[in-house]
Amino acid sequence: MKTYLECIPCFFKQALGAARLSGASEKTQKKILNEVALRIPEFPLIFGPPEMARIIYGIIKKMTGNGDPYEKIKEKSNKLALSVYPKLKKKVAHSRDSLLTAVELAIAGNIIDYGVKNSLNIREELGRILAEENSAIREESKSIFNYKNFKHTLKNAKIILYLADNAREVVFDRVLIEEIKRTDKIKNIIYAVKEKPVINDALWEDARMAGIEKTARIISSGLDTPGTVLSLCSKRFLKIFKRADMIISKGQGNFEALSDCNRPVFFLFMAKCPVIAQDVRCRLGDVILLHKTK
Amino acid sequence: MKTYLECIPCFFKQALGAARLSGASEKTQKKILNEVALRIPEFPLIFGPPEMARIIYGIIKKMTGNGDPYEKIKEKSNKLALSVYPKLKKKVAHSRDSLLTAVELAIAGNIIDYGVKNSLNIREELGRILAEENSAIREESKSIFNYKNFKHTLKNAKIILYLADNAREVVFDRVLIEEIKRTDKIKNIIYAVKEKPVINDALWEDARMAGIEKTARIISSGLDTPGTVLSLCSKRFLKIFKRADMIISKGQGNFEALSDCNRPVFFLFMAKCPVIAQDVRCRLGDVILLHKTK
Repeated sequence: MKTYLECIPCFFKQALGAARLSGASEKTQKKILNEVALRIPEFPLIFGPPEMARIIYGIIKKMTGNGDPYEKIKEKSNKLALSVYPKLKKKVAHSRDSLLTAVELAIAGNIIDYGVKNSLNIREELGRILAEENSAIREESKSIFNYKNFKHTLKNAKIILYLADNAREVVFDRVLIEEIKRTDKIKNIIYAVKEKPVINDALWEDARMAGIEKTARIISSGLDTPGTVLSLCSKRFLKIFKRADMIISKGQGNFEALSDCNRPVFFLFMAKCPVIAQDVRCRLGDVILLHKTK
Repeated sequence: MKTYLECIPCFFKQALGAARLSGASEKTQKKILNEVALRIPEFPLIFGPPEMARIIYGIIKKMTGNGDPYEKIKEKSNKLALSVYPKLKKKVAHSRDSLLTAVELAIAGNIIDYGVKNSLNIREELGRILAEENSAIREESKSIFNYKNFKHTLKNAKIILYLADNAREVVFDRVLIEEIKRTDKIKNIIYAVKEKPVINDALWEDARMAGIEKTARIISSGLDTPGTVLSLCSKRFLKIFKRADMIISKGQGNFEALSDCNRPVFFLFMAKCPVIAQDVRCRLGDVILLHKTK
């Protein structure tokens, strides 16, 4: 997805939020915004928003010396997420269509991440998602939900590349990966995390803490961008990206980076921003399982 | 009020909105945002937001040749506002405290302006405001409402300077000015409008169309900023500003520009942005009648 003009105000919002989280003084915050401003004229809109995010976090690191402003938040939420794991497993086990429930929970992880940043009541939201009779996701919010296609592609896929999003979602991803493996043990599932910290994206240690390595191979994409920007990925990752029979992509950042790529990608995310909702043609807040074909 | 860092993303939002209204192509819109970006580093935060708005509208005028993107919108809303005038007068006439009702209606004009830009249901809102038994403003939204002080200052004021905000509010201002004159005909009321177009701010012709000159003297502040930035006002205006016994200031822009000045200003506005709400210490959407004393 290209960068829309509406993304530009948002770049400054993000920069300010991350600068504050990095403990920058007000003077340094202004300096960071100044530096971001100077990059705007040279930033071509054909680049996706994750490429600007990379620039922004680079500036923050340079100005504050803090390369991982979200470190503490991630640690805390990793623990919270793990404590939920048994409940997620129970929900999948008791559901009529366990794969569907696992897919829904994987997206629910993305909703919760949104909630944390937007003072949504997480405990209440989690309670609703986990309530046994409920579907993990409200039916009316599933405006684009290519589950049939997902199931069919999955059946025939041998190598599956799973692109992680935020650290706190990893445990939800683990549940989906375990469900895929439960029905077909020989599947080769590779879970790709970021190489270096960017926002609250999952890194190697987050994936390990959530127990992914018990069920999938963890690799690094080589990136420090929120979203899998192919031109910046490591060669090793790109090889797998090209060979995979199916790619499961979590979160908005990965959608922004890969929505125009020519591979069998299934995008699982909540449409959290109006620009993406417009691009996908759904309502803000809708839950998306999208197989975008060129 | 100084510019807060949160205002910076908003500058870009405003620039984009106005660029589109000016009919700029997408390419020109990006060029406008680039130019705004280049001004950020040199913009000191001690300047208020209206000074940045002046820069933004200057860039748009230079890039598109359109010096008044809101012209058509203003024309339309001037007509709408005038059609409401008899109903406003009736409401004041039938109320228990006619001055209070007139003050409330003057602020209601500011709410309606907000509604127009934020797809609030104007007809419904107007209907609610005009409903005879209702107060024009919901009691719970009046978090800061120094009416007693306003009434007392008004009683002793001979020269009153009334600072206009948006064009569509002028007819609401006329009702308040007429109510003030009804009880004390010798009062000298001066209604200040902007010299040149900026956003949808009231100009001389808007004030005339709304019939202000029947009850007050219209002057220009000499400005093309949304908000009365004293350092940019005409000498003639400043003379009146200093001599006035009471200043009635409409809208957020005037609050941003004058909140730290050393004159008896009463600010009437709706807190439409979170930064202002925080500065004033009220909730977003609250209705304010504030006598700020240094």
